[in-house]
Amino acid sequence: MTSVHIIGTGLIGTSLGLALTRQGADVTLEDAVATHVALARDLGAGRAVGPGEPLEPDLVVVATPPDVTAACVEAALARWPGATVTDVASVKGTVLTALRRNGADLARYCGSHPMAGRERSGAVAGRHDLFDGRAWVLTPTEETSSEAVEIVATVARSAGSAVSMLPPDAHDAAVAAVSHVPQLAASLVAARLEDLDEDAVALAGQGLRDVTRIAASDPSLWTQILAGNAAAVRDVLRAVSDDLAGIVAALDELASAPDPPGARATLARAISAGNAGHARIPGKHGAAPTAYTTVRVIIPDEPGQLGRLFADIADIGANVEEFHLDHGLGQPFGLAEVDVVPASAASLAEGMELRGWRLHG
Amino acid sequence: MTSVHIIGTGLIGTSLGLALTRQGADVTLEDAVATHVALARDLGAGRAVGPGEPLEPDLVVVATPPDVTAACVEAALARWPGATVTDVASVKGTVLTALRRNGADLARYCGSHPMAGRERSGAVAGRHDLFDGRAWVLTPTEETSSEAVEIVATVARSAGSAVSMLPPDAHDAAVAAVSHVPQLAASLVAARLEDLDEDAVALAGQGLRDVTRIAASDPSLWTQILAGNAAAVRDVLRAVSDDLAGIVAALDELASAPDPPGARATLARAISAGNAGHARIPGKHGAAPTAYTTVRVIIPDEPGQLGRLFADIADIGANVEEFHLDHGLGQPFGLAEVDVVPASAASLAEGMELRGWRLHG
Repeated sequence: MTSVHIIGTGLIGTSLGLALTRQGADVTLEDAVATHVALARDLGAGRAVGPGEPLEPDLVVVATPPDVTAACVEAALARWPGATVTDVASVKGTVLTALRRNGADLARYCGSHPMAGRERSGAVAGRHDLFDGRAWVLTPTEETSSEAVEIVATVARSAGSAVSMLPPDAHDAAVAAVSHVPQLAASLVAARLEDLDEDAVALAGQGLRDVTRIAASDPSLWTQILAGNAAAVRDVLRAVSDDLAGIVAALDELASAPDPPGARATLARAISAGNAGHARIPGKHGAAPTAYTTVRVIIPDEPGQLGRLFADIADIGANVEEFHLDHGLGQPFGLAEVDVVPASAASLAEGMELRGWRLHG
Repeated sequence: MTSVHIIGTGLIGTSLGLALTRQGADVTLEDAVATHVALARDLGAGRAVGPGEPLEPDLVVVATPPDVTAACVEAALARWPGATVTDVASVKGTVLTALRRNGADLARYCGSHPMAGRERSGAVAGRHDLFDGRAWVLTPTEETSSEAVEIVATVARSAGSAVSMLPPDAHDAAVAAVSHVPQLAASLVAARLEDLDEDAVALAGQGLRDVTRIAASDPSLWTQILAGNAAAVRDVLRAVSDDLAGIVAALDELASAPDPPGARATLARAISAGNAGHARIPGKHGAAPTAYTTVRVIIPDEPGQLGRLFADIADIGANVEEFHLDHGLGQPFGLAEVDVVPASAASLAEGMELRGWRLHG
């Protein structure tokens, strides 16, 4: 089995150590902060190694904060001339540029990005199943040896991830659009709530909650991510900004004249373009979101009602693909949205009504 | 019991007719399209009335598309001099301005906005329980008589809603920030996905799904809503646009220089402001979102697992406040996030582990 040395025992490094240790790998741990590595070791993520200790890992995984990733990868390539090195930073181009500039051995480096672990940080938040079912993107270059790609892919898979490949630039452009710009949009919308009156914020519905959920993210980490992907994020944001300027101009005209030519078309086009983009987002297991049919069920707000709901769904024999619970304001019940494959929807709805549930839509 | 005349038998009008009919009210229906009113009648939303038929309703509810709301309210006030008139448009200032300009009898008009019914449209989507537990905001002015406020509040409550009051301008400014700008943000972010490569869209995670869920909304309806609230939406969007310009400038500096002074602080402030705004969004029953503790449970993707989960939760005696099911890519299981009051979290987690569930975080 492979020997893996993990540098940086935060959430990702510790979780990877826990996952690989369970798979029987020989995992060693290192961190700039001695207490961090001791905690990760105590949690079972691997063996802690001291600064002078001899080590010959097959793979070195750099799981440090993004700002120091490139320097750590470069040092690891120099320190272990026989090892493959990867990193888990969520931006790949900046790391690669720095390595290339400094003449690092790129044949032994294969950048990667596990799409996992967004909400908590530190070794104590580490879990062996953090990567279960998550995408782990590998970003090899022309210089990367096939052996290096293979060992990183093998380790990512043995941590439970589904491995895919993208060139570094394509990866960074992709995460700018699917992750970094959505983060900023959520933050910008949420920021507008800061000075709102209490009775205005009280009108918040599920739409606002969904749009702003990730606005609760860590400013320090996100500053490093955004700074590391500055050019790609800027390019997407400029396109957003152009669209936004058109909308503001249209609204400005509509605010001062009853029927300015073209203004309504600008608004309609913006919402329609959103429809088209939204339709491209894959759902569970890669299926399109439209592949499911939603059955809406009124849930009394009492202990056990959701248990009864799911027991009845199981009894009917339907498999829930997506589930969402929506709540009314100031009323003692909620609305459950149960997504199933279309072929199951009619029998689920009928079965639920037979079992005394009130359906909604 | 009150007699209520509903003009416009789309989703809202039909649902209101269904709700009030069940409560024993005498509901009459009218629509510019004869087949629409016939459908609503057949669904049980009330009696259809012909153009010449005499009618003396206590309350007239205008539930037409936003663009014709003001004209319909004005006509209703003139046609039934003894009736109170309300409307259900999601923007209140433009309706009021038009009525005042045309000298309508504002003592008998009380605008309102039920916060319900976002996804489907038409009579066929109507449900008697659409308003159950939803906020219904009344926007009386100084001219509105207390009798008019009372009858609209009574009808809204008998439809199942929780009634609150806001001045029209405050209502429109509030929905601009909590509903209209979030809609545009979701649409603008989603629009950036339209031309993305398939393998880039494949990296979409739960964050993107949440931010863009409402980007699937109806362009025609939203054009009317945004145009009707143009000034308030423009004002919030300008603030968003200013923040965005600062971020684009900071990213532009970071893309061309290693450590431009102040650029990282701009990014960190944007994410921090989002933290602060997000913390103000009320959760279920008005509680702050931070009032709940999340227990994360690994769910095998087999029929009946969610039933077992909720049966076990019920057995443990915990009351689920929020529930979210997250899915891995290409792997046969999901991650359930179960939010409970902090006092229940430890016993829930312990109970789940005792019952053989794998916890996560």
